[in-house]
Amino acid sequence: ARTGDPEVVFGQGKTPDQIVAALRALHEAHPDRAVLATRLSDEAVAACVERLPDADVDPVGRTAVLGTAETRGTVAVVAAGTSDLPVVRECATTVRVFGAEPDEIVDVGVAGLHRLLAQRDRIAEADVVVAVAGMEAALPSVLGGLVGVPLIAVPTSVGYGWNLEGVTAWLATVNSCAPGIVSVNVDNGFGAGVAAARIARRTAQARR
Amino acid sequence: ARTGDPEVVFGQGKTPDQIVAALRALHEAHPDRAVLATRLSDEAVAACVERLPDADVDPVGRTAVLGTAETRGTVAVVAAGTSDLPVVRECATTVRVFGAEPDEIVDVGVAGLHRLLAQRDRIAEADVVVAVAGMEAALPSVLGGLVGVPLIAVPTSVGYGWNLEGVTAWLATVNSCAPGIVSVNVDNGFGAGVAAARIARRTAQARR
Amino acid sequence: ARTGDPEVVFGQGKTPDQIVAALRALHEAHPDRAVLATRLSDEAVAACVERLPDADVDPVGRTAVLGTAETRGTVAVVAAGTSDLPVVRECATTVRVFGAEPDEIVDVGVAGLHRLLAQRDRIAEADVVVAVAGMEAALPSVLGGLVGVPLIAVPTSVGYGWNLEGVTAWLATVNSCAPGIVSVNVDNGFGAGVAAARIARRTAQARR
Amino acid sequence: ARTGDPEVVFGQGKTPDQIVAALRALHEAHPDRAVLATRLSDEAVAACVERLPDADVDPVGRTAVLGTAETRGTVAVVAAGTSDLPVVRECATTVRVFGAEPDEIVDVGVAGLHRLLAQRDRIAEADVVVAVAGMEAALPSVLGGLVGVPLIAVPTSVGYGWNLEGVTAWLATVNSCAPGIVSVNVDNGFGAGVAAARIARRTAQARR
Amino acid sequence: ARTGDPEVVFGQGKTPDQIVAALRALHEAHPDRAVLATRLSDEAVAACVERLPDADVDPVGRTAVLGTAETRGTVAVVAAGTSDLPVVRECATTVRVFGAEPDEIVDVGVAGLHRLLAQRDRIAEADVVVAVAGMEAALPSVLGGLVGVPLIAVPTSVGYGWNLEGVTAWLATVNSCAPGIVSVNVDNGFGAGVAAARIARRTAQARR
Amino acid sequence: ARTGDPEVVFGQGKTPDQIVAALRALHEAHPDRAVLATRLSDEAVAACVERLPDADVDPVGRTAVLGTAETRGTVAVVAAGTSDLPVVRECATTVRVFGAEPDEIVDVGVAGLHRLLAQRDRIAEADVVVAVAGMEAALPSVLGGLVGVPLIAVPTSVGYGWNLEGVTAWLATVNSCAPGIVSVNVDNGFGAGVAAARIARRTAQARR
Amino acid sequence: ARTGDPEVVFGQGKTPDQIVAALRALHEAHPDRAVLATRLSDEAVAACVERLPDADVDPVGRTAVLGTAETRGTVAVVAAGTSDLPVVRECATTVRVFGAEPDEIVDVGVAGLHRLLAQRDRIAEADVVVAVAGMEAALPSVLGGLVGVPLIAVPTSVGYGWNLEGVTAWLATVNSCAPGIVSVNVDNGFGAGVAAARIARRTAQARR
Amino acid sequence: ARTGDPEVVFGQGKTPDQIVAALRALHEAHPDRAVLATRLSDEAVAACVERLPDADVDPVGRTAVLGTAETRGTVAVVAAGTSDLPVVRECATTVRVFGAEPDEIVDVGVAGLHRLLAQRDRIAEADVVVAVAGMEAALPSVLGGLVGVPLIAVPTSVGYGWNLEGVTAWLATVNSCAPGIVSVNVDNGFGAGVAAARIARRTAQARR
Ligand SMILES: Nc1ncnc2c1ncn2[C@@H]1O[C@H](COP(=O)(O)O)[C@@H](O)[C@H]1O
Ligand SMILES: Nc1ncnc2c1ncn2[C@@H]1O[C@H](COP(=O)(O)O)[C@@H](O)[C@H]1O
Ligand SMILES: Nc1ncnc2c1ncn2[C@@H]1O[C@H](COP(=O)(O)O)[C@@H](O)[C@H]1O
Ligand SMILES: Nc1ncnc2c1ncn2[C@@H]1O[C@H](COP(=O)(O)O)[C@@H](O)[C@H]1O
Ligand SMILES: [Mg+2]
Ligand SMILES: [Mg+2]
Ligand SMILES: [Mg+2]
Ligand SMILES: [Mg+2]
Ligand SMILES: [Mg+2]
Ligand SMILES: [Mg+2]
Ligand SMILES: [Mg+2]
Ligand SMILES: [Mg+2]
Repeated sequence: ARTGDPEVVFGQGKTPDQIVAALRALHEAHPDRAVLATRLSDEAVAACVERLPDADVDPVGRTAVLGTAETRGTVAVVAAGTSDLPVVRECATTVRVFGAEPDEIVDVGVAGLHRLLAQRDRIAEADVVVAVAGMEAALPSVLGGLVGVPLIAVPTSVGYGWNLEGVTAWLATVNSCAPGIVSVNVDNGFGAGVAAARIARRTAQARR
Repeated sequence: ARTGDPEVVFGQGKTPDQIVAALRALHEAHPDRAVLATRLSDEAVAACVERLPDADVDPVGRTAVLGTAETRGTVAVVAAGTSDLPVVRECATTVRVFGAEPDEIVDVGVAGLHRLLAQRDRIAEADVVVAVAGMEAALPSVLGGLVGVPLIAVPTSVGYGWNLEGVTAWLATVNSCAPGIVSVNVDNGFGAGVAAARIARRTAQARR
Repeated sequence: ARTGDPEVVFGQGKTPDQIVAALRALHEAHPDRAVLATRLSDEAVAACVERLPDADVDPVGRTAVLGTAETRGTVAVVAAGTSDLPVVRECATTVRVFGAEPDEIVDVGVAGLHRLLAQRDRIAEADVVVAVAGMEAALPSVLGGLVGVPLIAVPTSVGYGWNLEGVTAWLATVNSCAPGIVSVNVDNGFGAGVAAARIARRTAQARR
Repeated sequence: ARTGDPEVVFGQGKTPDQIVAALRALHEAHPDRAVLATRLSDEAVAACVERLPDADVDPVGRTAVLGTAETRGTVAVVAAGTSDLPVVRECATTVRVFGAEPDEIVDVGVAGLHRLLAQRDRIAEADVVVAVAGMEAALPSVLGGLVGVPLIAVPTSVGYGWNLEGVTAWLATVNSCAPGIVSVNVDNGFGAGVAAARIARRTAQARR
Repeated sequence: ARTGDPEVVFGQGKTPDQIVAALRALHEAHPDRAVLATRLSDEAVAACVERLPDADVDPVGRTAVLGTAETRGTVAVVAAGTSDLPVVRECATTVRVFGAEPDEIVDVGVAGLHRLLAQRDRIAEADVVVAVAGMEAALPSVLGGLVGVPLIAVPTSVGYGWNLEGVTAWLATVNSCAPGIVSVNVDNGFGAGVAAARIARRTAQARR
Repeated sequence: ARTGDPEVVFGQGKTPDQIVAALRALHEAHPDRAVLATRLSDEAVAACVERLPDADVDPVGRTAVLGTAETRGTVAVVAAGTSDLPVVRECATTVRVFGAEPDEIVDVGVAGLHRLLAQRDRIAEADVVVAVAGMEAALPSVLGGLVGVPLIAVPTSVGYGWNLEGVTAWLATVNSCAPGIVSVNVDNGFGAGVAAARIARRTAQARR
Repeated sequence: ARTGDPEVVFGQGKTPDQIVAALRALHEAHPDRAVLATRLSDEAVAACVERLPDADVDPVGRTAVLGTAETRGTVAVVAAGTSDLPVVRECATTVRVFGAEPDEIVDVGVAGLHRLLAQRDRIAEADVVVAVAGMEAALPSVLGGLVGVPLIAVPTSVGYGWNLEGVTAWLATVNSCAPGIVSVNVDNGFGAGVAAARIARRTAQARR
Repeated sequence: ARTGDPEVVFGQGKTPDQIVAALRALHEAHPDRAVLATRLSDEAVAACVERLPDADVDPVGRTAVLGTAETRGTVAVVAAGTSDLPVVRECATTVRVFGAEPDEIVDVGVAGLHRLLAQRDRIAEADVVVAVAGMEAALPSVLGGLVGVPLIAVPTSVGYGWNLEGVTAWLATVNSCAPGIVSVNVDNGFGAGVAAARIARRTAQARR
């Protein structure tokens, strides 16, 4: 792309054939960069595993990657639990493809504060923090009070009853009492990963 | 009232004259109970101070009380900051009029976890906890993970930007990741106080 | 859990295998307590019946329980009709697992007042009342005028036409003209059961 | 009007001068019918009292009437309390101007069932019932279970906290568990009055 | 039912077996009245046709009727087109079961005014008019300007693009510029039919 | 402007001084074109009358115009009543400034069809029709069935009760059963005028 | 139709048999005009291909056309990418059937401005521009700043995460900073095509 | 604050006296840092000018600053026009207080692309870009296609008609077709400034 970023295939609504072909074509055109496909269906995941033996396919995050990127800087991707794992993985894979190193820290929800506090220093060492949270999304606010690192919140559609498919979590992220939190669309681990990697890469050059 | 509760005057939309008269009449009819008026305007607060010398008037919580109630059991009324104070006070006064002892604990927001953790034991000793919280209302969830006491959340309309006049906070309270939290309407310190006092009074009889 | 409550498996989105395994593991870890699984799919119900012969499985409330809890205090779980039965059952089972005795009273809708009035004394004797109601959810308000017992409302998604999947009922519960009613998310019989059991257990110690 | 109904002036957004002039002109044009103005401001109420000595002006319902109508049939206009009185009055006055006899029955809210049950026979004798109700609007449903008379619900904007300016009440009226209830816009006592009078007049001819 | 109306089975969410059994039982208990089942699935329609040979089954309106009712008074059920036919039929069948004579008038949408004007006299002769309309629901307003008969609007979910599943039509019915229109929930032909039949029966006694 | 259109000053939120100065400056820069200011406050209207003697100021449409434009083609601006007049006028003035001839036709609401039908030929002769309508906005649909001329709908915020400040009317315009209707934002007479003038001017060249 | 436009079959909710029959009947009745069917299901597309050999069937735009129309004037149908193609096609086919020549210009999204600027002159030459855009729908605003041609925006439901099924795009089109943009319902390529063809035909006569 | 950031006073809802006192107290406690007050009323602006001669007061951005901060790195704050200026200024002042250098670039709306393209290189040189945009908020998407710099969008409530007080703009920012855009609450120039300064400071250390 014109902005210098790697090429990405948005898999939603595409057939397995289209996705495999697009990954191959882009990889041939840019053999020195990684190419990423996201939002893969079960069928597309299977097709990538079978027909792209060199690809790195993640059935949880629903992504496939061809090629590798050099990484610089780290992004802590933090979440409360396993329900948010698909979004965590989509984000972490995007971070790596866009040139930074992800550090996944799950099972640190606000209803079990001791586990979260135990990870505080590890989180504070990252160049950027991505907080993935569903339901009432209290996690970004608690993290925002614990660390001064740039913090991107990803609201997720995980919940029960009337949660407006993630809008409850989204509203929470933009009304946080902790200043300086920015956020992306519901379940948009990809968008958060792109932004986080851009920031981490630039920050990391400083430490060289 | 038929349910054995004290009488209450809902001050919103009533003139100072109407409120003073109602308090006097109800107090004469029930001299042995406390009588409460809520949602007083500035004018009504002034009228109560001037014309009801025996009344206990609170300009912050916007309440006036005539007479006293015997109290049994305690209710911790917890909040993040001073912006939520009017709701905290309306709730605490209601708790007392409805026969339980309120314990106000403010300045314990989730963005300053150490202050909240410092109050943990005091909160856990109450018979009921009322968590008053605006913006993204993360406080009830964090409290719900810390104590096993019955917990009532009061979302408030405190916030900036697009918070839907408290609906963000309300959605958070009913989508909490901590189980067993119940809630009331936005800014309804009165409703939470009535419920909390009923529970605390009954619980406290146990310890006699 | 840290708050002293029993362990629970939220079945929605989990495979039958995961649910059976989780129930077994938690039951072995806490043989003296009951373990509860909720929101079971048809397949998960069948798997529990077949593979957990000691479990108490309810295909209506979609729950499975391993082990038993000692109960103290009673919770009246009241509803208008059979459409709300799944939520009534989820609530009642939760109440029992969390240590109180449920008393299910259905077929007492507001459009047939005489049946409701006939149950008034039985309801008033409970330590807590849970009112389960869909459509316009008038039941909690009517009950709130009849008894002074702590009252938790559970709005349900039962209805026809434009009811916003239970939000009509939810709005009704938080705008009730009867003071002191608290509520939970749409269809959240589990949450109401946890809160009710906590209150009932504490209240019941008083009568010992 | 073409449909045979009396002329009406919608006062909202009109100056006192415009209203007085319109009432005069319409009364002169139709001296044998009543002419109605609704939604009068304080200033318009005062202007009508002063400058239209023959008018029947109601400062609570905010209406003014010139001339009288022959009435036939009765409409029970029922409400929970004094807050809904302005809507009750707008409706009752409209009923009379459109040719039927209103019977106002207030202070019969669902939180005090005995008062409502005491009026049951009086309500059942009317040709039409209009149920005016704010907050959670449980009244129409309870009435719908008690009487078989045509029933029109008027949701009102009366409430506290998040009631969406009457939409909670409105949703309740169209989701009622009692069949055959019809409704009008929030606070639209006028619209309900027009419909009720049309039905009552036609029904009453039967008894002659 | 207590209000003197016939018994009704709400078919949505019930199995064919439950519906057939309920119709039989209610018909035996009230052999002199009609019994109605609404919102039948394809399977329930087939079961009624096969197992209840005396039933009057309508696969378009998705209703089944056992027994007949004596009718008095007429209800014009008016609609723009064939898409609204299921609602028209549910309404017409309900009208007949509840004791009035329906007159179905379809294909009279506002985009073809001449067809509507051609039916004006026929519509004006009815005791009640039910206007069934989807999309922007202009039909009730146009009818309200043409006839002075009591008019009930039924908004339908018929439409394309963003129509909020009938809420556009619903909002139109309660904001009509024609005074005295009342309405029911989206697609609620049953509710409109109950209300219309009650009014028509009472009106018709007048002409005897 | 770059697109060849005249310059416009959006008066909302601007002081009378700013508006007068802007009009003067733009008029001097483009003496051969008309310059338009919209959304004038009462104070701004007065300032324009006093300080810009050559301006054409309309206190109803809240516009001021300096200079004149040559016009080509006609735009019928149609509305039900006087409440919509400010929007009608803003639109008509914009049409003229942008180079076409407006023809205002008011008092043709759908509740009085005969008046509308009487204007049918006059409307059909225009090059473009703008239908301005509040409340349930039935007018555009009825017009769309009567004439084949390009038709732009302007929903207005005129109404009573719950009309969502014009959104009811807006939804109606985009869900019209008459094909080919396009619409603009609520009360946006200006936007409709710009579009209508562009179309009319181009069409009119055909007849030369 | 009365307005002189060709006949159209709205395929949504109709069976393949109904659609084939309707196309045949209308074509026989109007052999000199084109007849259009829209919103065809996969089955309906197949049925038209097989049973109407003379029809022009488009499986992407989901349309079938019998007969041809004489065209006059051009409509540029512009879009960012392939996801919006079905709407582009529905619009283009409608334009042709309604008598104007469509010019499809895709792959000109705002995130790749150079491609859009490269097509500027081609777009400016059309008699009308239709801008089809999903997600945040920035395209109509950018186009509105580049050309002075009448511009109709079609918001689409294309997007990810919380885009309210096209309402985000819709809101964007009616809040555009470029004056004079009009719009239609979400995904309503048909409606935009009807309006665009009417304008283009009239404009084109000018150039003859 | 604990996170190492400067202290801030949220001026909304505070009296001039409270604001002046808070600024003084915080400045004395932290003489080496800058202290910021935001959302000042007209009265508070005047009080700061008069009583805090050393303060830097901005009546447009409604901020007051005491003391200065050392800055590192640059933040381009970009907007379409003067209506968004208050938010631009709140953001720019926050950026400086939080330790980075703001570069304000206004008058670059998408409806005048040439002005925006003329500033492209200046924008691309910043360490972070903040795009402030109201109405349909197309600006962030266009910028996101032009530069690869980390980009924070601030939707504003600037608009006309139905824009949902900035929610249209907000929805646009999180549904952007340009990847990697993050956003904050409506009008929250402060929040964007905090986030931008954190990123810019860290990035700038790299260049030392
Ligand atoms: N702050 C409050 N919020 C909600 N409801 C209240 C409040 N204060 C009083 N009420 C209710 O208002 C009733 C009295 O209303 P009224 O008769 O209008 O004074 C009481 O019985 C309470 O149920
Ligand atoms: N309170 C009311 N609520 C709603 N509509 C009303 C009301 N009062 C009058 N109207 C309607 O307004 C019309 C008169 O409006 P106008 O010509 O503006 O005075 C009457 O014919 C009624 O249809
Ligand atoms: N009444 C109106 N409604 C919507 N937009 C308008 C209106 N009047 C003017 N505008 C737009 O506002 C622009 C001028 O804005 P400004 O530079 O703030 O005066 C014009 O170019 C129009 O696009
Ligand atoms: N303009 C603003 N928008 C949102 N939050 C703000 C703003 N200004 C200050 N704050 C927050 O408000 C806090 C101070 O609030 P207070 O203690 O009430 O003065 C700061 O720490 C910021 O987090
Ligand atoms: Mg979470
Ligand atoms: Mg808070
Ligand atoms: Mg119910
Ligand atoms: Mg009420
Ligand atoms: Mg229709
Ligand atoms: Mg209108
Ligand atoms: Mg797009
Ligand atoms: Mg903008």
